[in-house]
Amino acid sequence: MTLNRKKVIGVIGAGDPGAEDIKIAEAVGEEIASNGYTLLCGGMGGVMEAASRGSKSKGGFCIGILPGSSKDDCNPYIDFSIVTAMGHARNVIVVGSCDAIIAIGGSFGTLSEIAFALRLEIPIIGLNTWDVSTDIKKAETPKEAVHMAISLFDYRN
Amino acid sequence: MTLNRKKVIGVIGAGDPGAEDIKIAEAVGEEIASNGYTLLCGGMGGVMEAASRGSKSKGGFCIGILPGSSKDDCNPYIDFSIVTAMGHARNVIVVGSCDAIIAIGGSFGTLSEIAFALRLEIPIIGLNTWDVSTDIKKAETPKEAVHMAISLFDYRN
Amino acid sequence: MTLNRKKVIGVIGAGDPGAEDIKIAEAVGEEIASNGYTLLCGGMGGVMEAASRGSKSKGGFCIGILPGSSKDDCNPYIDFSIVTAMGHARNVIVVGSCDAIIAIGGSFGTLSEIAFALRLEIPIIGLNTWDVSTDIKKAETPKEAVHMAISLFDYRN
Amino acid sequence: MTLNRKKVIGVIGAGDPGAEDIKIAEAVGEEIASNGYTLLCGGMGGVMEAASRGSKSKGGFCIGILPGSSKDDCNPYIDFSIVTAMGHARNVIVVGSCDAIIAIGGSFGTLSEIAFALRLEIPIIGLNTWDVSTDIKKAETPKEAVHMAISLFDYRN
Repeated sequence: MTLNRKKVIGVIGAGDPGAEDIKIAEAVGEEIASNGYTLLCGGMGGVMEAASRGSKSKGGFCIGILPGSSKDDCNPYIDFSIVTAMGHARNVIVVGSCDAIIAIGGSFGTLSEIAFALRLEIPIIGLNTWDVSTDIKKAETPKEAVHMAISLFDYRN
Repeated sequence: MTLNRKKVIGVIGAGDPGAEDIKIAEAVGEEIASNGYTLLCGGMGGVMEAASRGSKSKGGFCIGILPGSSKDDCNPYIDFSIVTAMGHARNVIVVGSCDAIIAIGGSFGTLSEIAFALRLEIPIIGLNTWDVSTDIKKAETPKEAVHMAISLFDYRN
Repeated sequence: MTLNRKKVIGVIGAGDPGAEDIKIAEAVGEEIASNGYTLLCGGMGGVMEAASRGSKSKGGFCIGILPGSSKDDCNPYIDFSIVTAMGHARNVIVVGSCDAIIAIGGSFGTLSEIAFALRLEIPIIGLNTWDVSTDIKKAETPKEAVHMAISLFDYRN
Repeated sequence: MTLNRKKVIGVIGAGDPGAEDIKIAEAVGEEIASNGYTLLCGGMGGVMEAASRGSKSKGGFCIGILPGSSKDDCNPYIDFSIVTAMGHARNVIVVGSCDAIIAIGGSFGTLSEIAFALRLEIPIIGLNTWDVSTDIKKAETPKEAVHMAISLFDYRN
């Protein structure tokens, strides 16, 4: 039976990024929505909020997998907030729910998500992020990152 | 700041329900979508699938919080599949992510979700389900259940 | 290959029980340790602390599956604290890690654990607790509860 | 009030390590037990099993935080098996439950655990493992690794 499920692109990165990463994240979010895909992220601030803002500015949907216990403790661009109340363990859910992931900058939380993506063999594209494996595809621009993500979807699904 | 977050009504119940509960679940899903709300469920078969089918027939969105580790191991009406890979622990996420919940029939898995809803003080409406607390509001029809759910939303959010 | 794994009896119940349930829990903890078994609980106060205190008074080991994020946010009788940082989702881990469970009184959190025990078919003995299934074996005294728990171990393991 | 809680040293590493890492892991386990501390690991094979075997050979206790849903699906040296049924999300619990962690070799699963340890600021000592931060203290021998771990315990607890 054909699934109705929508393809989802994850954006991961720091909650307190530099100005450059915020700009990149917003452009990535715009590009995801412009191409008709859903954005999934950790639902909080920084890279997550910038990407969500970009996506909403182009009419896209944003899913936030929240670490906390309140539906409303998320950035204002999230359409659907998933309340895990599981802190960092929610990183596994963020990663596992995506068809491809774009990592932007980031610290140790982002590194844990990159490690899970590599472990679960979910396509991951890096923009100025951790360089721990050749399985992280490097992109130079937000547009390139999103197009690489789309090209890596598993179309057997 | 105003949140963009959409109000979500959960539907919980057995994966192998009787014919009557399937009929009720489908009608509940239709009513949720007709009123413009998003359906959230465990993403699998039985009551979850029937409610999702009803929602999609009226153009609604369906979120599935999956117990397994594959994005595509869900019923065909799910728009957004959240992959927890956490088995029964996903029940806590199902419950915590809803603005109100409608319980239809159900066995011990549903009972665990009802218990979490009562513990987390998330409004819960029962249709032919476990009778373990007067805090479960009883509805007689799918339409009544959905209208009760909407009336119980916390509009401080 | 023979496993070294120790048989574990879980004790579940309220964090703010009445005086009678505290007395019962302490006696249950004593009896578990006197029979040479390990106690597992949610690691916090009330029934959990009373059972842990009883167990330690007889030289037993106590494992606490903690909801919070600090190793030391547990009752003083816990030998091994497992930090889930997952709030109520830790209830599934409490239940799944036991060879048999004794439920004492309790509110909705305890009900969620009873529901998971019934769902996972882990033997459960009740002392003055929720009456939601005939699969909960009723005991009259702490000693009887522990002996019933031991008799229900799965010795295929 | 004084806590009874025992200090726990975690050992993380691959389920399918090379012969050298197995030898190192076993020696680390021996040293942890010889110094009177409890070993905690993921409970499965490879580095986890070798460390557990070393610990038991010196009379130590071994806690296994299992990814699966069966209490008995663990290596034969585990004393206490904690059943998470949460797959890779159990890595967060492994890390969060330790007073210090020793990483031996390892692939992406181990990298996720190292990332969580760095994020949670739990002391981590590396033996031939991922080199992603200067906060990973490098040890040359199993004995040195365990002594470094002990020296990094937070004695405010």
